[in-house]
Amino acid sequence: MIRGFRFSEPQELPEHGVTVVFVELENTKIELLHPLGDKSPIAGFLAKNTSGGIHHMCIEVDDIEAAVKTMKEKNVRCLTEKTRIGAHGKPVMFLHPKDCAGVLIELEQT
Amino acid sequence: MIRGFRFSEPQELPEHGVTVVFVELENTKIELLHPLGDKSPIAGFLAKNTSGGIHHMCIEVDDIEAAVKTMKEKNVRCLTEKTRIGAHGKPVMFLHPKDCAGVLIELEQT
Repeated sequence: MIRGFRFSEPQELPEHGVTVVFVELENTKIELLHPLGDKSPIAGFLAKNTSGGIHHMCIEVDDIEAAVKTMKEKNVRCLTEKTRIGAHGKPVMFLHPKDCAGVLIELEQT
Repeated sequence: MIRGFRFSEPQELPEHGVTVVFVELENTKIELLHPLGDKSPIAGFLAKNTSGGIHHMCIEVDDIEAAVKTMKEKNVRCLTEKTRIGAHGKPVMFLHPKDCAGVLIELEQT
C-alpha cells in the first residue's frame, strides 16, 4: 500500500492568487494549487499545461534573508524585491527558473 | 544558510536512457537527469523545455505490486506492463501523467 496521505482544508491566498490544499506525506508535502481571482499567477502555467503539472518546488531554509543574499551573490535572480508571506505564514522568495535549470524554486523560512 | 546538499557521483542507466546525479537534502532527494544515448526518453521533454524543468516526482511505496494494483483499480494507467529496475536497484513504475493531474509520477519500492 502507498503510505497514508493527509489532506488539509482548502486555503485561499488572495495575495498570491491561489487556493491551496496541502497533501502531507511522511517526509514531504505536496501543495495543490488552484487559480484564485482574475489575475492568478498560475493562469499562464495552466494555459500552457492544460492537464496540470508540477509548478514549483519549495526548499525550506533556516534563514531566508541569508539564503536570498547567497542566491544574489551567485547571480540567481529573485522574482520579487523582498520576501512575501507564504501559505504557512512564513516569509518566502521565488527564484528565477532561468537561473535554476528551468525550475521555479520557492525558498521558505522554516 | 541553505541546509547542506550532498551530490552523488554520476550514474549511467542505459536501460532508462539517462545519466543521473542525486542531490540529497535532509528529508528528500533531487534526481538530476541528463539524456544518455540517441533514444533517451527525456529528449522530448528537453526539446519542449529548453531551459530544463521538473520532469517527474517519485513516491516511495512499501509494496510496489500492491501499489500498482491499487492504481489499476483506480483506472490510473501505468506506462509499462511490468515494473523495471530503477536507479536505486529497486523496482519502479511510472504512471500516466494524464491520470495524475499532468504530473509524471514514479512509484519506487522502498
